[in-house]
Amino acid sequence: MEQEFIDYLRRGVPTNNLVQLGIGDDAAILDTQQSKTVLTVDLLTEGVDFLLDEVEPHLIGRKALAVNLSDLAAMGAEPTAVLVAVALPKDCAEVLAPLLLEGMKPLLQKYKIALIGGDTNTWDGGLVISVTAVGRVTRHGPLKRCGVNPGDRILVTGTLGGSRLRHQFLFEPRVHEALHLNAHYRIHAAIDISDGLSLDLARLSAESQVGAIIDTHHVPIADDAKTMAGEQTGASHAKSPLEHALYDGEDFELILAVPPDEAGRLTETQPLADSWGVPLTDIGEFVAEPGQWLRDQNGHSQQITPQGFLH
Amino acid sequence: MEQEFIDYLRRGVPTNNLVQLGIGDDAAILDTQQSKTVLTVDLLTEGVDFLLDEVEPHLIGRKALAVNLSDLAAMGAEPTAVLVAVALPKDCAEVLAPLLLEGMKPLLQKYKIALIGGDTNTWDGGLVISVTAVGRVTRHGPLKRCGVNPGDRILVTGTLGGSRLRHQFLFEPRVHEALHLNAHYRIHAAIDISDGLSLDLARLSAESQVGAIIDTHHVPIADDAKTMAGEQTGASHAKSPLEHALYDGEDFELILAVPPDEAGRLTETQPLADSWGVPLTDIGEFVAEPGQWLRDQNGHSQQITPQGFLH
Repeated sequence: MEQEFIDYLRRGVPTNNLVQLGIGDDAAILDTQQSKTVLTVDLLTEGVDFLLDEVEPHLIGRKALAVNLSDLAAMGAEPTAVLVAVALPKDCAEVLAPLLLEGMKPLLQKYKIALIGGDTNTWDGGLVISVTAVGRVTRHGPLKRCGVNPGDRILVTGTLGGSRLRHQFLFEPRVHEALHLNAHYRIHAAIDISDGLSLDLARLSAESQVGAIIDTHHVPIADDAKTMAGEQTGASHAKSPLEHALYDGEDFELILAVPPDEAGRLTETQPLADSWGVPLTDIGEFVAEPGQWLRDQNGHSQQITPQGFLH
Repeated sequence: MEQEFIDYLRRGVPTNNLVQLGIGDDAAILDTQQSKTVLTVDLLTEGVDFLLDEVEPHLIGRKALAVNLSDLAAMGAEPTAVLVAVALPKDCAEVLAPLLLEGMKPLLQKYKIALIGGDTNTWDGGLVISVTAVGRVTRHGPLKRCGVNPGDRILVTGTLGGSRLRHQFLFEPRVHEALHLNAHYRIHAAIDISDGLSLDLARLSAESQVGAIIDTHHVPIADDAKTMAGEQTGASHAKSPLEHALYDGEDFELILAVPPDEAGRLTETQPLADSWGVPLTDIGEFVAEPGQWLRDQNGHSQQITPQGFLH
């Protein structure tokens, strides 16, 4: 990394008391002896995850960080540090780098996450940004994908669908929500919705070797899903609000597997409502037989092939 | 990551006994409670770090991993795991991804490093590969850049210069060598040479607030540096073998700060020679006054502005 940018980073970003050695050496050192460490990486590319001429750079930086925090949330982990590597288009590298970082700062500050490593490169290509997020497992343990039992209820946070309108850049990763749920309730498993409710539910089901029935009339549909559906009425590719909620992706909400009694308690008391304004909705159940089904309010089920947004 | 590639990775790569949860969940979990954790990231881009039509893909994968291992070596850390994120050109993504990974395997196996996370993307742009390496601090502590004392000798591993001919893709990161030196000798500080002896020595010096005198006649010059110098004789941009050794970069050898008596012991006994065939050479001394000097065999010193290879 260039010295000037290193100096800028050393001044401008928050720290975390687990950081023993931050930016500026060959590598960073974290004190990880109190707990196990959770690690994930996500990379965004221009033209696929964002369009440079349509989105403000700070929103791109924010998203690159937020998608990783969403992964940590899905593990019930507490974020501690990130490493950021970028390939910057030559002609706007000096302008872009600080803007990307500015976009990350509010989330870094909110969760007390330290930026402990980075690699800035310029090249003839488009913008690529790769973030590695580091977290710690709390004493309540991690939330893995493999913990679902048949009979568990399927709960989701927030509302789904239509993320393309703006949610994909502005979403709040469910970090505090996941930590709260994991600390106070019996959550069997979790995954975040990056590629769509249907597809990510299928992944969660597959890792636990179970199936899932989605009660379609209970799926919480985002206003943006309705807006998008309304705009496309009559078009050959028109999707209903429900289809947007099932298949759009980039909701970055959580799917949770919860035993039935606990699910009842959660949906009744809505523990995420007061502090975070986030609803918890019971949208169906996990079953022993592998597969995915949509069930309407008359109880009619139809098996579907899970689909979603694939990058 | 696509399911097929995840399955391929789960089968095909080594593991490490610190891995509690590998590829396939929202994030990986490492047992890091025995020691502090070292983290670093490096990103390579097509056209800058490699040319896809000149270099075999497996060598690109190898290099992307090796440069990170070199950073861990410079910290005296033991590698444990890596996360790999790639942006693949659409038209050759399916061929490239496994080749990049094949190139990493020998190093992963040699050092028992687990691949614990990844993100594969395809796009309209060139190849970008970002590797985050995770290591652990041994009981001998980390080797930081800030530990140099004035009077310390400057030692380097291996030979320097001319890495462009092939060394930049085939170099062996000095992982075992650094662990051995850190365990058995008093090493005050270290850095790896990514951007050239002169520039990386200046970085090491700056972090320790000292200066450095390089005895030019002691700098170990690689055969490839001589070859490159020979090929360019008479050209306006011709560099001498020494200039290649000072400024070329991508040697990925180590610069070590060592107290004089220990330096004498190291250069006399050459502890890296038998197991790894790596020479240790005393090339000068750190001094209290900030700056960098070249000193010839007649004792004449000339101050220089540190320079090297900047990406």
